[in-house]
Amino acid sequence: MTCLIEEFTVNTIPYRVGIVGATGAVGQELFRLLLERNFPMVELRLFASARSAGKVIERGGKRFTVTEAKPEIFADLDVAFFSAGGSVTRALAPAAVKAGCLVLDKSSAFRMDPNVPLVIPEINAHAIRRHQGIIASPNCSTAVTLMGLYPLHRAFGLKRYFAATYQSVSGTGAEAVRELDAQSHAWARGEPLPRKVYPYQIAFNVIPQVDTFGPDGYTGEESKMMAESRKILELPELRVSSTCVRVPVVRAHSVAVNAEFDRPVDLATARAAIAAFPGAELFDEPAQSRYPTPLDYSEKVKCGVGRLRRDTAFDNGLSFWVSGDNLWKGAALNSIQIAELMIREGLLKPKARLAEA
Amino acid sequence: MTCLIEEFTVNTIPYRVGIVGATGAVGQELFRLLLERNFPMVELRLFASARSAGKVIERGGKRFTVTEAKPEIFADLDVAFFSAGGSVTRALAPAAVKAGCLVLDKSSAFRMDPNVPLVIPEINAHAIRRHQGIIASPNCSTAVTLMGLYPLHRAFGLKRYFAATYQSVSGTGAEAVRELDAQSHAWARGEPLPRKVYPYQIAFNVIPQVDTFGPDGYTGEESKMMAESRKILELPELRVSSTCVRVPVVRAHSVAVNAEFDRPVDLATARAAIAAFPGAELFDEPAQSRYPTPLDYSEKVKCGVGRLRRDTAFDNGLSFWVSGDNLWKGAALNSIQIAELMIREGLLKPKARLAEA
Repeated sequence: MTCLIEEFTVNTIPYRVGIVGATGAVGQELFRLLLERNFPMVELRLFASARSAGKVIERGGKRFTVTEAKPEIFADLDVAFFSAGGSVTRALAPAAVKAGCLVLDKSSAFRMDPNVPLVIPEINAHAIRRHQGIIASPNCSTAVTLMGLYPLHRAFGLKRYFAATYQSVSGTGAEAVRELDAQSHAWARGEPLPRKVYPYQIAFNVIPQVDTFGPDGYTGEESKMMAESRKILELPELRVSSTCVRVPVVRAHSVAVNAEFDRPVDLATARAAIAAFPGAELFDEPAQSRYPTPLDYSEKVKCGVGRLRRDTAFDNGLSFWVSGDNLWKGAALNSIQIAELMIREGLLKPKARLAEA
Repeated sequence: MTCLIEEFTVNTIPYRVGIVGATGAVGQELFRLLLERNFPMVELRLFASARSAGKVIERGGKRFTVTEAKPEIFADLDVAFFSAGGSVTRALAPAAVKAGCLVLDKSSAFRMDPNVPLVIPEINAHAIRRHQGIIASPNCSTAVTLMGLYPLHRAFGLKRYFAATYQSVSGTGAEAVRELDAQSHAWARGEPLPRKVYPYQIAFNVIPQVDTFGPDGYTGEESKMMAESRKILELPELRVSSTCVRVPVVRAHSVAVNAEFDRPVDLATARAAIAAFPGAELFDEPAQSRYPTPLDYSEKVKCGVGRLRRDTAFDNGLSFWVSGDNLWKGAALNSIQIAELMIREGLLKPKARLAEA
């Protein structure tokens, strides 16, 4: 149930860490990345719904048993990475805060709450200081888009942007990955394609709907891109219009972006800005057909930015293409980077451990 | 070699018709659609490169033998549908014109020639009258995009548009369809994926390159969308910026469009304009998750327009999503519709047939 992992306790006071939603697509990446990045842990506990309780996950010869996520689990934890749905998060996060356990939340439950910082460490690290127990990570499409957009904003002052996304099925969850897999196998065998998660076949198709529709005809995902971009970039007047589309790709989202800026743009400055930005990798050699694809930017810490060009429909405009791992920078990695930032800044303190004192 | 098809000669003087590039992806659709639409033909001849000469194509119990496309083939033809590459077209079309055979060309060879009308019958039918022997059909992405955009332009006056495409592999050609097929089968068998046509794996991936790159960082496909939109819509100042992307879909292209207009927009007028436009079908019920997908708009005469909404980043803006068959409206069907229009307008005359006189 609980596993001591002494080898990750180097150089800092180790933390008691929990993952809420550990069996989902993002939860599995949180688990993997916490271990691979040597996050300083004295203890790592995995939580999920009652349905998944008892499941055992092995890694590096150690066995981790999943237990049910309940309000009382947070008493012994310093930090909890939440990768559960909005309703579970809303139900459990207040108990964590009350117990003095920092909540790093991937869901949309608290992102737009004025008391909750919405943070991408490379962009608005300063926002962590005003947290009240919960810090949110952005929506995956927003995170990947801003990895290309933010350095350009710093250079030229962002005014407006249009985005069209090419989102992988892992953004929907592990069940959607299985659906694409099952449909592709059935197709290869010439059998009817099973369908459960998406309203339409996703193999050999694209679906221009991510999340449900709002009254303005935009989907939740599209509305989030506007609202979250405004909050993270601290540009309350920023205008954003996006079309979010699911494509038959397993992992990593890509986004085509057209952006207008306040100041005149030049390509050399734009390229230098992206190349110097810690969240992005400039991968842009059109003459050699080199540009990011989702396959190349799966399981990568940085997002790949390419196809950078002066926009032909804006005066002060730039267009680019960005691919990035929706489960990493778009979810698990960003939450862990927030925790790592808190540690570097001395803002994440292990709770007093009376039993050990 | 030559096949008499008397059943298609109803109600009009039948024509002697040729297809140049008959064995390619578009050529096969030209062949199929000419027969299915009962195009008035006394004769249909199939031409291709020397390599494909001798190939026999059967349809409805008739055998059609492919012969080599040479300058002298046009002497006996009234109209030739070209679906060959640019260089073959440039080499052969002048011979056809000289022989009095109308050239309906799908390639990009003559599209921007000021003496060649570039025609989508539902949009600029009047342009056919000034032809000098060649009439061009637009690029597939442009054609599909304009099926949604033109009715809105008529209603509100188009000023600028941004587009991101989701283009199927059949736009590259029959060999690319085989590549996606082969990669998908290899993937299902757990084998290495073969790769020949595209620079990157296309199965379970997206590739943000269609055509080669120009000095401005836009690809040929993207530049065509601007140039051809301007010519067809007769808006020489129109500003267009697009990102063209290949997706693992067999057939039908989709496009996410953000458009700005001169006049204030309203959704009711926009919806009515699209619904009334003969080239489009309004398929837009977000509450029921009904919108076009490429699977649903394969082998459809009309393009499907959905996700219609007021754009949140433009004052007088509308966004929409359109899916349409790149081999039909984006190629073969549009050429045939031009020929049908010419016939209706009395502009396509069979050459005098001395041997029969």
